[in-house]
Amino acid sequence: MKQSHPIAVLDSGLGGLTVVKALQRVLPAEDLIYFGDTAHLPYGNKSSAVVCAFVRQIVGFLRQMDPKHVVIACNTATALALPTIAAEFPELSISGVIEPGARAAVAAAGAQRLPAIGVIATEATVRSKAYERAILQRRSMARVLLRPTPLLAPMIEEGRTSDDPLVETALRQYLNSMVLRKVNVLVLGCTHYPLVKRAISKVVGPTVRLIDSAEQCAQDVARRLARKGLLRMPVRSPDDTGPLEDMPATGRLRTFVTDDPDRFAAMAARFLEMEIERPTLVKPNGEPDSSAPMVLRAAG
Amino acid sequence: MKQSHPIAVLDSGLGGLTVVKALQRVLPAEDLIYFGDTAHLPYGNKSSAVVCAFVRQIVGFLRQMDPKHVVIACNTATALALPTIAAEFPELSISGVIEPGARAAVAAAGAQRLPAIGVIATEATVRSKAYERAILQRRSMARVLLRPTPLLAPMIEEGRTSDDPLVETALRQYLNSMVLRKVNVLVLGCTHYPLVKRAISKVVGPTVRLIDSAEQCAQDVARRLARKGLLRMPVRSPDDTGPLEDMPATGRLRTFVTDDPDRFAAMAARFLEMEIERPTLVKPNGEPDSSAPMVLRAAG
Repeated sequence: MKQSHPIAVLDSGLGGLTVVKALQRVLPAEDLIYFGDTAHLPYGNKSSAVVCAFVRQIVGFLRQMDPKHVVIACNTATALALPTIAAEFPELSISGVIEPGARAAVAAAGAQRLPAIGVIATEATVRSKAYERAILQRRSMARVLLRPTPLLAPMIEEGRTSDDPLVETALRQYLNSMVLRKVNVLVLGCTHYPLVKRAISKVVGPTVRLIDSAEQCAQDVARRLARKGLLRMPVRSPDDTGPLEDMPATGRLRTFVTDDPDRFAAMAARFLEMEIERPTLVKPNGEPDSSAPMVLRAAG
Repeated sequence: MKQSHPIAVLDSGLGGLTVVKALQRVLPAEDLIYFGDTAHLPYGNKSSAVVCAFVRQIVGFLRQMDPKHVVIACNTATALALPTIAAEFPELSISGVIEPGARAAVAAAGAQRLPAIGVIATEATVRSKAYERAILQRRSMARVLLRPTPLLAPMIEEGRTSDDPLVETALRQYLNSMVLRKVNVLVLGCTHYPLVKRAISKVVGPTVRLIDSAEQCAQDVARRLARKGLLRMPVRSPDDTGPLEDMPATGRLRTFVTDDPDRFAAMAARFLEMEIERPTLVKPNGEPDSSAPMVLRAAG
């Protein structure tokens, strides 16, 4: 594997672009490949078996491009599929968003004796208990409060921002118990959520530390590549908050989607705050693209 | 084809159950087969090509059960796929939800010279202009106002009802222009929406006639079967608003889903206000159910 190989990032749709944005900031010279499974999105209310099947197809496709690392930039896919998929593709280096987020949450809780760590995520991520496990493994004396917030991602995809009264009303409903139970740290356990970080902070108050799982994931990828000597220079320190213009991204971003490249490109511009090259449409193998009717079969 | 054959109803997930409920009320003796494509839901933000591919697979599966009629009980699937799929399966009798809804809307507008007819629906249904075409074909002098309301279906799937303040806030935002432009008739152009009919009526006011596309679709199916002499007796008049206990459903309802039968069964009980038999899990052909990685290929 060479430094010049790309980093592959996959997601159910758009959310993983917050990971791309964070990667572009920390590793501006890296070539990135992004795969958005827009024909099958969202993953957040689907089962482990179905999400594994989707992710397996995507990783099989990305493998052809010889990536030096594959990031599952979707909390649901990480929670439901990462261990299975990593075992099925032992030749690939694969990581997700949950371990880095959990690690940062525990660090942010500091020396407190019994910290309360909240996590907001999709229904499937919450049900999987993946965050709970990852946090308690590092701090067995933490109280972990989980809350599914299924409307946030569709609200963000509709173009709503922190200033939208509907977003604030939904957040007040969702986060009420977190506020009452005085969480110290709140993990944004879905890669869409950084787009309404300001509204979340307003609702939980300025003393609650917010953990951006997209940001943490990007830093984790940088550490992994550094360890293997696979980083492409220059690298920007995560603590460097100076203007981005000082070190503009020079790596190329190519995107692949399973449905509607135009809609994806238009929405991606909002997530990345920049225009992207036209995405390539990819058809899942076995899904019909001719008019011949396919046969569905009853399972097990 | 015999009267004893079942009626097949298909949808992206749960919404089409409002059509099932209406069918059970009007045609209590009919056997019903319901297919919910829960692995691929929602359809409302996907392209015509992808939705056609999903519906083609489902109709191919349902055909094996020899249905006397197939109802596409999803406004998005009707808008994007009905003409294509009906042409591909000429041996089947297939109908959708849009024509019956448009017909009822025009009838409800009455003799007014330039009626304003509003339609709320998914993004894909609005973009397709299928309602606009169906209404203007019958009343070329109507003003048709379309509004995508993408959060309503996820709100309803989350369990929110007409009493939820978030539902009311969203409806006030979405329907503001309809109220200002004084619509006379409002079509609920998604089979989920009847579940928040009361809140919609509160927001637009009691003088606006609401058209329930699920209800209209069920009556349309009854008319089609009656015309062919394929109705299973007894039949209940759609105007009969007496207690349902007088004519309980005796037909059987079997359900098939592509993901998570338990979650579907739990949510179906809310849509139907009754428990259902355990749904059968169906795997789309070509989607992997073993651990063998599949290959995705770039399209055209």
